[in-house]
Amino acid sequence: MTASKSSIWFTDHLSPFEGHLYGVRNILFSTQTKYQKIDILQTDGYGRCLVLDGKMQSSEADEFIYHEALVHPAMLTHPNPKRVFIVGGGEGATIREIVRYPSVEKVVMIDIDQEVVEASRRYLPEWSQGAFDDSRVTVAYFDARRYLEENADVYDVIIIDISEPVDDGPAYLLYTKEFYEVVTKRLGPEGVITLQAGTTAGSLPCLAAVYNTLKTVFPVVAPYLASIPSFGLPWGFILASKGPDPGSLTKEEVDRRITCLPSASTENGVLRYYHGGLHHAQFVLPKHIREAMGTQVRIIEDNYPISVYN
Amino acid sequence: MTASKSSIWFTDHLSPFEGHLYGVRNILFSTQTKYQKIDILQTDGYGRCLVLDGKMQSSEADEFIYHEALVHPAMLTHPNPKRVFIVGGGEGATIREIVRYPSVEKVVMIDIDQEVVEASRRYLPEWSQGAFDDSRVTVAYFDARRYLEENADVYDVIIIDISEPVDDGPAYLLYTKEFYEVVTKRLGPEGVITLQAGTTAGSLPCLAAVYNTLKTVFPVVAPYLASIPSFGLPWGFILASKGPDPGSLTKEEVDRRITCLPSASTENGVLRYYHGGLHHAQFVLPKHIREAMGTQVRIIEDNYPISVYN
Amino acid sequence: MTASKSSIWFTDHLSPFEGHLYGVRNILFSTQTKYQKIDILQTDGYGRCLVLDGKMQSSEADEFIYHEALVHPAMLTHPNPKRVFIVGGGEGATIREIVRYPSVEKVVMIDIDQEVVEASRRYLPEWSQGAFDDSRVTVAYFDARRYLEENADVYDVIIIDISEPVDDGPAYLLYTKEFYEVVTKRLGPEGVITLQAGTTAGSLPCLAAVYNTLKTVFPVVAPYLASIPSFGLPWGFILASKGPDPGSLTKEEVDRRITCLPSASTENGVLRYYHGGLHHAQFVLPKHIREAMGTQVRIIEDNYPISVYN
Amino acid sequence: MTASKSSIWFTDHLSPFEGHLYGVRNILFSTQTKYQKIDILQTDGYGRCLVLDGKMQSSEADEFIYHEALVHPAMLTHPNPKRVFIVGGGEGATIREIVRYPSVEKVVMIDIDQEVVEASRRYLPEWSQGAFDDSRVTVAYFDARRYLEENADVYDVIIIDISEPVDDGPAYLLYTKEFYEVVTKRLGPEGVITLQAGTTAGSLPCLAAVYNTLKTVFPVVAPYLASIPSFGLPWGFILASKGPDPGSLTKEEVDRRITCLPSASTENGVLRYYHGGLHHAQFVLPKHIREAMGTQVRIIEDNYPISVYN
Repeated sequence: MTASKSSIWFTDHLSPFEGHLYGVRNILFSTQTKYQKIDILQTDGYGRCLVLDGKMQSSEADEFIYHEALVHPAMLTHPNPKRVFIVGGGEGATIREIVRYPSVEKVVMIDIDQEVVEASRRYLPEWSQGAFDDSRVTVAYFDARRYLEENADVYDVIIIDISEPVDDGPAYLLYTKEFYEVVTKRLGPEGVITLQAGTTAGSLPCLAAVYNTLKTVFPVVAPYLASIPSFGLPWGFILASKGPDPGSLTKEEVDRRITCLPSASTENGVLRYYHGGLHHAQFVLPKHIREAMGTQVRIIEDNYPISVYN
Repeated sequence: MTASKSSIWFTDHLSPFEGHLYGVRNILFSTQTKYQKIDILQTDGYGRCLVLDGKMQSSEADEFIYHEALVHPAMLTHPNPKRVFIVGGGEGATIREIVRYPSVEKVVMIDIDQEVVEASRRYLPEWSQGAFDDSRVTVAYFDARRYLEENADVYDVIIIDISEPVDDGPAYLLYTKEFYEVVTKRLGPEGVITLQAGTTAGSLPCLAAVYNTLKTVFPVVAPYLASIPSFGLPWGFILASKGPDPGSLTKEEVDRRITCLPSASTENGVLRYYHGGLHHAQFVLPKHIREAMGTQVRIIEDNYPISVYN
Repeated sequence: MTASKSSIWFTDHLSPFEGHLYGVRNILFSTQTKYQKIDILQTDGYGRCLVLDGKMQSSEADEFIYHEALVHPAMLTHPNPKRVFIVGGGEGATIREIVRYPSVEKVVMIDIDQEVVEASRRYLPEWSQGAFDDSRVTVAYFDARRYLEENADVYDVIIIDISEPVDDGPAYLLYTKEFYEVVTKRLGPEGVITLQAGTTAGSLPCLAAVYNTLKTVFPVVAPYLASIPSFGLPWGFILASKGPDPGSLTKEEVDRRITCLPSASTENGVLRYYHGGLHHAQFVLPKHIREAMGTQVRIIEDNYPISVYN
Repeated sequence: MTASKSSIWFTDHLSPFEGHLYGVRNILFSTQTKYQKIDILQTDGYGRCLVLDGKMQSSEADEFIYHEALVHPAMLTHPNPKRVFIVGGGEGATIREIVRYPSVEKVVMIDIDQEVVEASRRYLPEWSQGAFDDSRVTVAYFDARRYLEENADVYDVIIIDISEPVDDGPAYLLYTKEFYEVVTKRLGPEGVITLQAGTTAGSLPCLAAVYNTLKTVFPVVAPYLASIPSFGLPWGFILASKGPDPGSLTKEEVDRRITCLPSASTENGVLRYYHGGLHHAQFVLPKHIREAMGTQVRIIEDNYPISVYN
């Protein structure tokens, strides 16, 4: 064994039969909150990482892939996004991507767990890059579903940036038909949402079920793919909208809109992952995934929720 | 811990700092050949798997992704592939994909390790599905590089289906400029090659170096992506040709050609992964990968080879 | 990593916080019986191993330590053991040690799981070394507790050779006061029993509880220690008797009795672990273990059983 | 998997085929010194632990076993220990055990790595319990072998408290015949030494070789055993002397001497592991270990050193 090999490892158990190992240099923060276990790890291969309930959320090395893939499909598909709501989003990187858009006037982020936000601001400041301090942004700690049920404000874009549904975890009831029905009520007529929906490996029960469930609520539902290396498996996302179709924008128009995003700082002012070509290519599913999406019929309901292994 | 969780695990050490864990139900075959260590594992999550020198090569669950992604970009880009050469290809699945094409008259596969082929035929018959017995196919056990150096036959398509370069491993000198110069001499005027070129995670030193090296030899060099879940990380491939450009075929034309492939058996006669849309989408690289390909300048030479961690 | 390092590992989870890793060369046999999961592994470090419900039972390399430590303290302490009963004992090595004694006229072994015995005879023949065929031996597959409850035969020595108590496992009700009360009824006036009672690491809840429980039933209760490397932790055993005290034999007398055991074969005819000095030394507990035994008061009852992590 | 199970693990690779896993709650300190890698871990099962070059040295939960087993056999065997030398001993717990003896006038500890001592004093204060501040103690950072070669002071007891010999590690030349010849020159006429000598598992190449090597230098050489759970395997120690024999003291006399050690604090003033019975019992080796000691003939020399896997 070479001297440089890691001797302390974090294992993300992706399934009862599969895991991904990350060499750990330091455990920067670790606590059990009211809602979940938080670990912030300094890994050897991916830099700092946020781990919730034993599952990798995002890493210094490639969180830009996850967050750009999550946010820009919705923000670019909506013709003029002014009001944006974030379900979850604790790390602050989703806000960072949203406030790039000059059209945005108001961002409301509701995360149930204040301790995740505080730990992220302290230990992972590159994720938010000051975006929490943007004057357009409001952050509150609350059950996002109940917030949307009780507050009648309407948004152009809603980004659902939550962890996977694990038994008794905080995201459990944020994947159901009933929740998406609340979401659609809080969207304007051209409203667009995006969310991550689990791995595309295996029989993709999560991705297909979320897809089917969204189709009962939204007229436009478009699954798309991104590979975030630190996730250990390829990943699926879904865009759903009340009308706008991501495919109606040309590659050139997407690149033009991206070029117009302000680039205050050299390093972070520009997108690192997303571009016009990808805006189209990411929606092209391999045949076996397309077919799996079509053949599964599970609808997720409050009384019949899904959960993934953890 | 649930009763169903695996208690025996194979670890593929992707780097000194990262690994992927596979629950093992059975070790079907294990030997040290003259060239490498072979393990054929019955895994809980991916079915049977071929492991060479401790690195996952392909799994029952998703080898179709790897082999379709490796073979069809070349076979569809060449206008009329008749003679095909395979460097390596021990599992036999690459032959399986090639002999689907009615235009093919001759397939020569040269793998250095007869024991890999024999173990694959015995334990992994679904990989080759009888293709070794196709009358157009010739298999020999030899150093593929020396074979190409010494035999002047010319091919339309050459598929380089080898394991990653590990120190003293059998694929060590099949990633160099000198080898690609031999390959190009054995290609007809519209010759096309494809190969796998390592993960797209991290700073992708392997993928970028192979890309740069191929560009010193071929006029057309096009990297592309595929996600094979059992690999534990997203993966890069490269198509290179003496002229034909994969982008010149329309999506519809690709789908038409695929439709014309004979479908003798219901299950295996049709492609499971590849289609016309993917033929284009897979060549669209995320911005950070595109940029990494452009900024690295390493050329791989016999005197200056590359190797990956194992 | 050196080429010789194992890449497939079995983990015995000794506690939620601790495990022992064994490099695996082959999985010789694996099944789920009505009672438990059986795995017979060819390990790199310990040769063949029997694993039940994910917990190491015995290994080719050091089962002689476990079985000699389990059997001889009782057989040597009883003045003239003729009738011996084995609770469990599936591997057959406990029989092997018992039939060494010329005084033995009858051995009854009752194991609940016929599949363990059959797999052991097939894959681990060195454990029993033909002892199953000894004419004095009777083996039956049945609940040993119920057997003892229903059969009034009396024994000189009873060896309890069972796995640790895991939730819903087959040994669950073989560690309770009620069971030991049955055992004592089936012992002759100088009857002696021995059993393994879990690790001596940590706060030894199992060992101390079994000790306390036995003390409610037997006048002589003597804990002792043995280190079986493949167990990953130091181990505790207990001898209990209706009268005979292991300390009353001199070291020399123990050695003399061992010398009188017939040594038919050179290799296996003689003891490899046990001797007169050890007969005394093993009962000397470190101060912290002695004190832990004294301070814990838990009594194990059918309604209040114990279980260990698995 | 239960919520309480560790998800971050340290693995001590005991051999190429075996390891022990420790759940890690926190990495308190980690550095690469000029001599070795230091990690101080907060484990879930053993409290704080010192790890050098990837190998467990001692844990909060059971370092008392290791240090009492290392120190007291020598201190009790010498009739009147006044001057004590420690080779290594960085954690300070060996000093702690030595200064219990009122007869001790001078303790010299020479450890090559000041950073180990400083990290231990800061993160593991329970190990030394203020003993570094005892006025009889002198600590210096130097090559202990060269120190003994160059300084002609004579000692009653020398405790060799060093890590296992790993390739290029700091303890490499502290296991050789040449070193023990230096040690014997620095011992008074009734001088006694003790040291740890590796696991008793397997073919015990380290323990047997150290035993044979010591026998070429000392008239009395007595191996003994202790089980330190956090070591993952049973462990061997050796006492060697110029004359005093540990067996010549009665159990009662040992207990009397221990009773006379001052017990300033309730918790730490008394021994937790060692007592008169153990003083004798620990020297009783199982038959297979006794025989392995006798059959191996390897002598360790500067030109022919040993090393263990790490």
